[in-house]
Amino acid sequence: MDFATLIGILVGVGLIGGAIVMQGIKSETSFTVFAEPISFMIVLGGTLAATAIAFPLKEVLRIMTILRAIFKGGKEDLGPLVDEIVEMGTVARKGPKDLEDALDRVRNPFLKDGLQMVVDGYSVEEIRDILGTRVEYREEREMTEANLFKAMGKFAPAFGIIGTLIGLVFMLKGMGGGEDMASAIGSGMATALITTFYGALLANLFFLPMAEKLLTQISSKSTQQNMITEGVCLLQMKKHPLIVREKINSFIPPREWKRMEPGAGA
Amino acid sequence: MDFATLIGILVGVGLIGGAIVMQGIKSETSFTVFAEPISFMIVLGGTLAATAIAFPLKEVLRIMTILRAIFKGGKEDLGPLVDEIVEMGTVARKGPKDLEDALDRVRNPFLKDGLQMVVDGYSVEEIRDILGTRVEYREEREMTEANLFKAMGKFAPAFGIIGTLIGLVFMLKGMGGGEDMASAIGSGMATALITTFYGALLANLFFLPMAEKLLTQISSKSTQQNMITEGVCLLQMKKHPLIVREKINSFIPPREWKRMEPGAGA
Amino acid sequence: MDFATLIGILVGVGLIGGAIVMQGIKSETSFTVFAEPISFMIVLGGTLAATAIAFPLKEVLRIMTILRAIFKGGKEDLGPLVDEIVEMGTVARKGPKDLEDALDRVRNPFLKDGLQMVVDGYSVEEIRDILGTRVEYREEREMTEANLFKAMGKFAPAFGIIGTLIGLVFMLKGMGGGEDMASAIGSGMATALITTFYGALLANLFFLPMAEKLLTQISSKSTQQNMITEGVCLLQMKKHPLIVREKINSFIPPREWKRMEPGAGA
Amino acid sequence: MDFATLIGILVGVGLIGGAIVMQGIKSETSFTVFAEPISFMIVLGGTLAATAIAFPLKEVLRIMTILRAIFKGGKEDLGPLVDEIVEMGTVARKGPKDLEDALDRVRNPFLKDGLQMVVDGYSVEEIRDILGTRVEYREEREMTEANLFKAMGKFAPAFGIIGTLIGLVFMLKGMGGGEDMASAIGSGMATALITTFYGALLANLFFLPMAEKLLTQISSKSTQQNMITEGVCLLQMKKHPLIVREKINSFIPPREWKRMEPGAGA
Amino acid sequence: MDFATLIGILVGVGLIGGAIVMQGIKSETSFTVFAEPISFMIVLGGTLAATAIAFPLKEVLRIMTILRAIFKGGKEDLGPLVDEIVEMGTVARKGPKDLEDALDRVRNPFLKDGLQMVVDGYSVEEIRDILGTRVEYREEREMTEANLFKAMGKFAPAFGIIGTLIGLVFMLKGMGGGEDMASAIGSGMATALITTFYGALLANLFFLPMAEKLLTQISSKSTQQNMITEGVCLLQMKKHPLIVREKINSFIPPREWKRMEPGAGA
Repeated sequence: MDFATLIGILVGVGLIGGAIVMQGIKSETSFTVFAEPISFMIVLGGTLAATAIAFPLKEVLRIMTILRAIFKGGKEDLGPLVDEIVEMGTVARKGPKDLEDALDRVRNPFLKDGLQMVVDGYSVEEIRDILGTRVEYREEREMTEANLFKAMGKFAPAFGIIGTLIGLVFMLKGMGGGEDMASAIGSGMATALITTFYGALLANLFFLPMAEKLLTQISSKSTQQNMITEGVCLLQMKKHPLIVREKINSFIPPREWKRMEPGAGA
Repeated sequence: MDFATLIGILVGVGLIGGAIVMQGIKSETSFTVFAEPISFMIVLGGTLAATAIAFPLKEVLRIMTILRAIFKGGKEDLGPLVDEIVEMGTVARKGPKDLEDALDRVRNPFLKDGLQMVVDGYSVEEIRDILGTRVEYREEREMTEANLFKAMGKFAPAFGIIGTLIGLVFMLKGMGGGEDMASAIGSGMATALITTFYGALLANLFFLPMAEKLLTQISSKSTQQNMITEGVCLLQMKKHPLIVREKINSFIPPREWKRMEPGAGA
Repeated sequence: MDFATLIGILVGVGLIGGAIVMQGIKSETSFTVFAEPISFMIVLGGTLAATAIAFPLKEVLRIMTILRAIFKGGKEDLGPLVDEIVEMGTVARKGPKDLEDALDRVRNPFLKDGLQMVVDGYSVEEIRDILGTRVEYREEREMTEANLFKAMGKFAPAFGIIGTLIGLVFMLKGMGGGEDMASAIGSGMATALITTFYGALLANLFFLPMAEKLLTQISSKSTQQNMITEGVCLLQMKKHPLIVREKINSFIPPREWKRMEPGAGA
Repeated sequence: MDFATLIGILVGVGLIGGAIVMQGIKSETSFTVFAEPISFMIVLGGTLAATAIAFPLKEVLRIMTILRAIFKGGKEDLGPLVDEIVEMGTVARKGPKDLEDALDRVRNPFLKDGLQMVVDGYSVEEIRDILGTRVEYREEREMTEANLFKAMGKFAPAFGIIGTLIGLVFMLKGMGGGEDMASAIGSGMATALITTFYGALLANLFFLPMAEKLLTQISSKSTQQNMITEGVCLLQMKKHPLIVREKINSFIPPREWKRMEPGAGA
Repeated sequence: MDFATLIGILVGVGLIGGAIVMQGIKSETSFTVFAEPISFMIVLGGTLAATAIAFPLKEVLRIMTILRAIFKGGKEDLGPLVDEIVEMGTVARKGPKDLEDALDRVRNPFLKDGLQMVVDGYSVEEIRDILGTRVEYREEREMTEANLFKAMGKFAPAFGIIGTLIGLVFMLKGMGGGEDMASAIGSGMATALITTFYGALLANLFFLPMAEKLLTQISSKSTQQNMITEGVCLLQMKKHPLIVREKINSFIPPREWKRMEPGAGA
C-alpha cells in the first residue's frame, strides 16, 4: 500500500474544499454554489465519452483494476531481491535438481518463471530473448494504461472549457440593460466558470498525477525485471555468486548495496 | 465492432446536447442559439482546408476508410492466435506439404503469408527481414493516418478561435453607447464564442480521441504481427511446440496464457 | 502537381473571406475593417525577422523552392517502381553490360545512381552504406526545411499577440470617461484583435499545414529510397526476381501488390 | 557549491519583491496585499498533494536531499580527471599490485570501483557491461527526480488557476449593482489573481529551473562516468598512456585538452 | 558572418518599433509609454535569475561567447571540404610522410586532427571511435547551450505574465468608483500589459530564434564532422579517390556534387 497516493488525494481534496468554505465565509456566500451537477456531468461525462472513443472497450473497463494498482503502489525495494538472486545462484551451482526444489520458496513470479527456464535447460540466448520480450510488451501494454489517464487529464480541462462556453453563451444571450444586470452577469459567469474549475481540478488532482504514477511504476517494474533477467542469465552461465552480485548491484543505487568491498560511488 | 467508440460518441453528443437544452431552459433562451451555420462552416471548413494542404490528397480521401476502421476496432485477442500458431507448429514439423494443405484454414492474412514463406522455403533471416519490413512500413503508413486526425484536432480549435475573432471584431467595431449596448454586446459575444465552442467540441469529442484510437490500434496490430513473425520463424526452425508457445506467450499478458506449468508473473 | 494543397488554400481563404463578408453584412460594417496593413506588417514582418534570425540565410532564401516542392507534391506511387526494379533485376541477371544499356530508360535519379553502382561493381555493403548515408542526410536537410515552416507557424501567432498588445496599450492609455468611450474602446480593441487574427490565420492555414506536408513528403521519399536501396542490393546479389518482388513488396501496402500468389494481409 | 543557483534565487526573489514594493508605492497601496495565506496554501498544498499522488512516497521524501544536490552543484571539471586516469594508466602498466596500492589515492568513487575491477581481473566486456548498467540505471533513477520537479512546475500554475477560479466564482456570485461595485469587484479580482501569481512564480523561479538544473547535472555526470568507463577499459587493455589520453580527451572540449600535439578543433 | 541573424534582429526591432511609433501617432499618445524600466527589469532580470538557477554558472557566463557564435554563423559549405578530403586521399596514397607534410595546408582543425591520427598510424576502428566520441560529446555540450536559450525563451513570457499580474493586482486594488475610473483603469492595465509585451518580444525575437539557430548549427556541424570522420577512415583504408568522393558525396545534396558521371537525384 503506497500511502502517499491516498494522503495526497485526502490532503488535496481537503485543502481545496477548505479553501472554498473559507472563501465562502469571507464573502458571505454559501459554499454550496460550487455544487453544480450539470457542470460536473459535462466534465466527467464528456471526459469518459472521449476516453471511450479513444481507447478499446477492454482498456476502459480496466480503469478500476488500474486504479487499484495505483493505490497499491510498487514495492520497488530491490535490495532483498538482489540477495535472493545471489542465493539462488549458490543453489543453481549445485545442480538443476536443487534449483527446482528451491523454486517453491521464490515469491516473485517473474523470477520464478526465469528460474524454471534454467531448470528446463533453456539457453542463455533463449532466456534473454523470452524474458526480454515479456518486459518489452508488458511495458507497451502498461503504457496504454498510462496514456489512458494522460488522455483523461487532457480531456477534462477541455470539457471544462466547453461547459463554460455553453454557460457563457446563454448568459451573454440573456444579457440585457436591466437594473440588476451586474448581478445577473456575475451569477451567470460564476456558474459558467465552475465547469472550468471542475475540469482543472479533476485533471490536476486526479488524472495527471495518476498518469505520472503509472509511468513511474512501469519504469520501476522494468528495472526490477531487467535485473532479474540479467541475474537468471548469470545463473544459467553458472557465474560465481560474487560476480552475480557485482553485476546485478549495478541496477540499484550504491547506497543500497550489500557487499564486502569498501568504496562505492553513484 | 468496437461498441465503445459508438457509445462514446452517442453519450458525448447526448451529454453536451442535453446540457445545452437544460441550460437553455434555465436561462429561458432557446437552445437553437447554438445552431450557427457560419460558425460551423468556419471550423469544419477551415479544418478540412488546412488538412488538405497538410496531407497528400490520397490520404485525405481515405478519411472515410479510416473512420470505418476506427469504428470496427481491432480484435486484439491474442490468446487464440497463440493456439493457432502452436498448432501450425505441430503441422509444420510433419513437412511443408502438410503445412501447405493446412494453409486454407488460416484466416489471418499476415500469418498466412508468413506460413506460405515457410512452405516456399525462405530462410529464417529472409522471413524475419521481409515480415519485419512489412510491419515497419505498415506502422509508418498508419502513423500518417493518425497524424491526420491529430492535425485536425489541432486545427479545429484554432479555426474556432479564428472564427471567434472575426465575430468579436465586428461586434467591437459596431459597439456604440446606445441604450441597448449591453444586449448587443452580449448577443455578439455569444455568437462569436459559439465558434470557439464548435472548435473545442470537434477536437475533443471527435478528432483527438480518434487519433488516440488509431495510435492504440497501430500498436496493438504491431504486437500481433511481431508475435506472428516470431512464431513463423520458430516454425521454420522446427522448434518444439512447447518452446514455440513459451516464446510467443511472452508477447501477451500472463493472465491470458494457456500452459501446463503453474506460476506466472507479469 | 498535388491539387489538394492548392484546393485547400483556395477553399480556406475563400471560406474565411466569405465568413468575413457575411458577418460584415450582418453587422452592417464593411469587411474592409479587416484590412489593417500595420497589423499585417507586424505579423508577417516579425515572423520573417524571427525566421531570419533562427535559420541560416541559405535556408531562408530557399523558401520559394520549398514552396514549389510543397505544391508539386510527391508522386509516391510505389507500385510501378516495384515493377521497374523487378524488371531491372531480370536485366541485371544477364550481366552488367545489359544493365548499363538499360540505365538510360531509368527515370528515378536515385534508382539510376544505385544501378550505376551495381554496374561499377560496388559491393552490397558499399551500396547499402553509400545510399543509406544519402537517405539519412537528405532527411536531415529536409527536416531543417520542415522546421523552418514549423518555426514560422509558432512565430506568427506570437507576433499576432505582440501586435495586439501594442494596440491594446495605446487604446487603454487613451481611455477616458468621455461620451463615446464605448465606441472608442470597441474600435481600438477590434483593430488590436485583427493582428491576433492574422497571426492565427497565417499559422493555421499556411505555415503549420505546410510544415506537416513537408514532413509527410520527407517520410514518403525515404520509404521510396529505402525500397530502392533494398532493391538495388538484391540486384547486386543476383537474387531471383520473385524474391526481389516479395522483398520490396514489403515496403508497400498489400492492396497495391502485384503478384501471383493469392492472399495478402496488411 | 554552485553559487549561480543561490544567486539566481536571491536575485529573482529580490527583483520580484522589489517590483511589488515599488509598484505598491506608485499606486499608494501597501505591498502587503500580496500576502494571501489561503492563496499560498492552495498553490503549494495542491502542488504537494498532486506530487504525493504522482510519485512514490520514497521519492517525495527525498526532495530535501535532491534540493541539497541542486545547490551543491556538479563539479564537472573533467580536465583533472583525464590526468588522473592517464596517470593510473601508467601505474596499471606496471602490474595489478601497483594499481591496488594506488587505489587509496583515488577520490572519485566511480573511478575507484572501476579500477578495483581491473585489479580483480574482470574482463573488458564485463567492466564495460557492469559500469554501463550502473550509468544507465543511475540516469533512470535521477530522471525520476527531475520529473518530480518538472511535475511540480506543471502543477503549481494549475493550482494557481484553480485558486483564482475559486476566488472569481465567489466574487462574481456576490456581485451586485451597489454604489461601490467597482471597488468590490476590483478587490475581489485582485485577491483572486494573487493565486495565479503565486503559481506562476513558484513554477518559473523554483520548480522549473530546478528541474532543468537536475537534467543538466544528470547529463554532465553521465559524461563523466562514460569517460571513466572508457578509461578503465583502456587501462585493462594496457593501452599506451598517449592513446588513453587521446581517446578520453574526446569526451571533453578541445580547449580543455592538455597534450603535446598542436592543433585542435571542436 | 551570417548576416541573416543581424538583418533579422534589425528588421524585427525596426518593425516593432515603427509599429509602436505609428500606432502612437494614430492614437495621439507618445510612444514613450512603452518605456517601462520596472517592467523590463522584471522580465529580463527574472529570466536571467531563473536561468542562473537552471544552468551551471559556467554555462551562464558563456552566453556572450555563444551569442558571438550565433552571429558568426556556421560556414557549412561542404563542397570544398569534399574536394579537400579527396585531394588529401591522393596524398595519403603516396605515404604517411607526404600526408604529414601536407597537414600544414589543412585549415579545418577536426580534419587536421583526423589526418594526424592517420599519420600516427591509428587503426580505422580507433579513428572512428575517437572522432565519433568527439562528435557525440560536442553535440551534447552544445545542446546544453541551445537548451539555455530555449529555457530563456520559456521564462521570458512567464515573467512577463508575472509582472502583468503584479500590475493588475495593484490596479484592481486601487479601483474605485470615482469620476476618472475608466482613465485610471485604462492607464493601469496598459502599464501592466507592457510587461507581457516585453516577455513575448524577448522570447520570440531573441531567445527562441537563437535557440533554433544553435540547433541548426549543431546539426550542421555534426554533418560536417561525420563526413570528415568517414573521409579520414576511407583515407586510412587507402581507398581510391573516386570511391572516397562517391562515399562522402552522400553527405551533401546532389546539386552540390562535383563528379564526372551524369545523373544525380536527391
